[in-house]
Amino acid sequence: MSIITLTTDFGVADWFVGTMKGVILGIQPRAVLVDVTHEIPPGDIRAGAFALAASHPFFPRGTIHLAVVDPGVGGERRILAVQTRDFVFVGPDNGVLSCALAKENVEAVHHITNARFFLNPVSQTFHGRDVFAPVAAHLSAGVPIQKLGPPVRDYLRLDWPRPRVGQDETTGEIIHIDRFGNAITNIADSALSALDRARCEVSVKRKRPWPICCFYQAVPAGKPVAVFGSSGFLEIAVNGGSAARSFRLKVGDRVCIRQRRHQESSSS
Amino acid sequence: MSIITLTTDFGVADWFVGTMKGVILGIQPRAVLVDVTHEIPPGDIRAGAFALAASHPFFPRGTIHLAVVDPGVGGERRILAVQTRDFVFVGPDNGVLSCALAKENVEAVHHITNARFFLNPVSQTFHGRDVFAPVAAHLSAGVPIQKLGPPVRDYLRLDWPRPRVGQDETTGEIIHIDRFGNAITNIADSALSALDRARCEVSVKRKRPWPICCFYQAVPAGKPVAVFGSSGFLEIAVNGGSAARSFRLKVGDRVCIRQRRHQESSSS
Amino acid sequence: MSIITLTTDFGVADWFVGTMKGVILGIQPRAVLVDVTHEIPPGDIRAGAFALAASHPFFPRGTIHLAVVDPGVGGERRILAVQTRDFVFVGPDNGVLSCALAKENVEAVHHITNARFFLNPVSQTFHGRDVFAPVAAHLSAGVPIQKLGPPVRDYLRLDWPRPRVGQDETTGEIIHIDRFGNAITNIADSALSALDRARCEVSVKRKRPWPICCFYQAVPAGKPVAVFGSSGFLEIAVNGGSAARSFRLKVGDRVCIRQRRHQESSSS
Repeated sequence: MSIITLTTDFGVADWFVGTMKGVILGIQPRAVLVDVTHEIPPGDIRAGAFALAASHPFFPRGTIHLAVVDPGVGGERRILAVQTRDFVFVGPDNGVLSCALAKENVEAVHHITNARFFLNPVSQTFHGRDVFAPVAAHLSAGVPIQKLGPPVRDYLRLDWPRPRVGQDETTGEIIHIDRFGNAITNIADSALSALDRARCEVSVKRKRPWPICCFYQAVPAGKPVAVFGSSGFLEIAVNGGSAARSFRLKVGDRVCIRQRRHQESSSS
Repeated sequence: MSIITLTTDFGVADWFVGTMKGVILGIQPRAVLVDVTHEIPPGDIRAGAFALAASHPFFPRGTIHLAVVDPGVGGERRILAVQTRDFVFVGPDNGVLSCALAKENVEAVHHITNARFFLNPVSQTFHGRDVFAPVAAHLSAGVPIQKLGPPVRDYLRLDWPRPRVGQDETTGEIIHIDRFGNAITNIADSALSALDRARCEVSVKRKRPWPICCFYQAVPAGKPVAVFGSSGFLEIAVNGGSAARSFRLKVGDRVCIRQRRHQESSSS
Repeated sequence: MSIITLTTDFGVADWFVGTMKGVILGIQPRAVLVDVTHEIPPGDIRAGAFALAASHPFFPRGTIHLAVVDPGVGGERRILAVQTRDFVFVGPDNGVLSCALAKENVEAVHHITNARFFLNPVSQTFHGRDVFAPVAAHLSAGVPIQKLGPPVRDYLRLDWPRPRVGQDETTGEIIHIDRFGNAITNIADSALSALDRARCEVSVKRKRPWPICCFYQAVPAGKPVAVFGSSGFLEIAVNGGSAARSFRLKVGDRVCIRQRRHQESSSS
């Protein structure tokens, strides 16, 4: 198995991603390259971390996940290779790997320093091509992770926003707007355990409460609906429309799940 | 041969398509995955149907064509697998397959219900990952289509706009604006059989008649030209420019091919 | 080795690129297809030439590089296959191959005329599908380049803008704006050989001089910096930001590297 996934902020308009693939295939001709996305907003480590964490578990064991959202390229940030029970991760030590690693059993972390596995020369502005791609290819071709550089103890973890879970109310925030205008929050299904879901309503930006349903079409077309989406988090949506556009939602907006008291009647 | 094509409205900014590919490769490591497009406008079944119909015949026999434009995800729409003489198609039963199927010899249609071939659990919002991807992969790996669910008689056909073919005039409409700003109509070459092509002129939005030529550069740079394009349909174009931008064309605009009477002289 | 790279202006919203891949895989099932980019601005031969030249050397020997930026499709422009020591190039004879070829040892140039290696029929508007894709696939499958058509002596070279190198000053221009808003110029590292780099400053659009550094983060966040980038050319950047947006830079803007006289003090 020789899958290498690529998650970057390089976009697809330039030749950057194609060039990385050329480097990889030159070292490991049998690599199967899968783009997760290259449209992470430039330098947005958190968005890259979320995309990687949402996608990586769906790949087969042995997949090498390469994440290059690297605003510190050329500077002093470390480059890491991380062996987990099921995968190998390669990326800068800026937190972009950390959300995925939080879901995995980490077995070893290595600081990549061995220039024997880099292109020569190494540019100061495109480590995706000159360091990350060849390292991922060498790992895929069988180079043991220990040869890449010394083991290290720790890696940078993103200060990820956590929802506040109360007795009557859980408060979180929007962490991603997807292609359909669905606003994905940081509120996982488990955050509702203390609440009676049938009596829960979601509000965002002081808009009137939205019902929690099982799928988008549970409400009429054009109507707002909150669902627990495919990533396991609450999503604010509009059936057949864009919640983000209709309600001007953006990353960081607060979202509140509130349990109606028994004497209240539903206003939805 | 184990090609699987993907036509979706998932875009490439999120991790959705990459995740589907991970699921497929986990089941069928030898799959060769080819993106037709992921930029179908969200929920635009007709655009998805047209893209699939324009591209699918150019793949080798045995290709599995997966189309996920699925605004009804989680609802009651059926999911179909269709065996034709040359291909297998997988998609929701909302018409997205119907334009392609109209060109093929359909041999069997099955309603996909066998959860043994789905991911477990199945989300209510991302059947692309949880149902369509694993089903396509199992088909590619050799699972007989009969095992996916019961045979059904029919499938939803799009109410596709047809041109009105008259003695002196054929009227159609724009069904796609491509990347170059060319406006592809629903008027096929055969619709002109009753007309004397040399005396035909095209008008759209009451703009002065455009000549029908064989290729874009048959007119000077910047000039309008109508050609029968690579999909077999009349296209409204501007040599070296964007007809859509220059003439504010959009999907649904009416297009008329009219045969000049003998006494008329060309005004082009 | 059977890598075929694709550099086009077809975009990814339409089915054009996917269709080309279907054609290629039908002829050469073992082809490994790598997208360099499909977002070359429509008809922008120079942008295509630059992307190809920046990426092609990073692919392994034997790679077939296919470049389809072809505003003259259907007209009289020739289609070429070029054998170099390390690669094969296929593209229209409009200069799109010329920047890459300038870096390679050209061994043979053939004018592709043998319709036996085209699809049948050939449309007049989509040679990417009907000519370029099948020709690249046949080359990949082992067809000798001589069978494609007669050898020719020459090919069209782009009139690429060259920097003016003076004793105290080198003047060039911006030739590409990348995804990050970095403005890549036509000034190569070697153009500075006559200058004392430590005393050099870059100005663009009469903006105050920018320092030349080794990497983006050599200046504080939000500050302008000039670096010699991964393509070997001077880039105008902003650490953590978009130089193009901040300074309204565009392709064609003049860029000047000037050596401060000894009595001058730095104003950066």
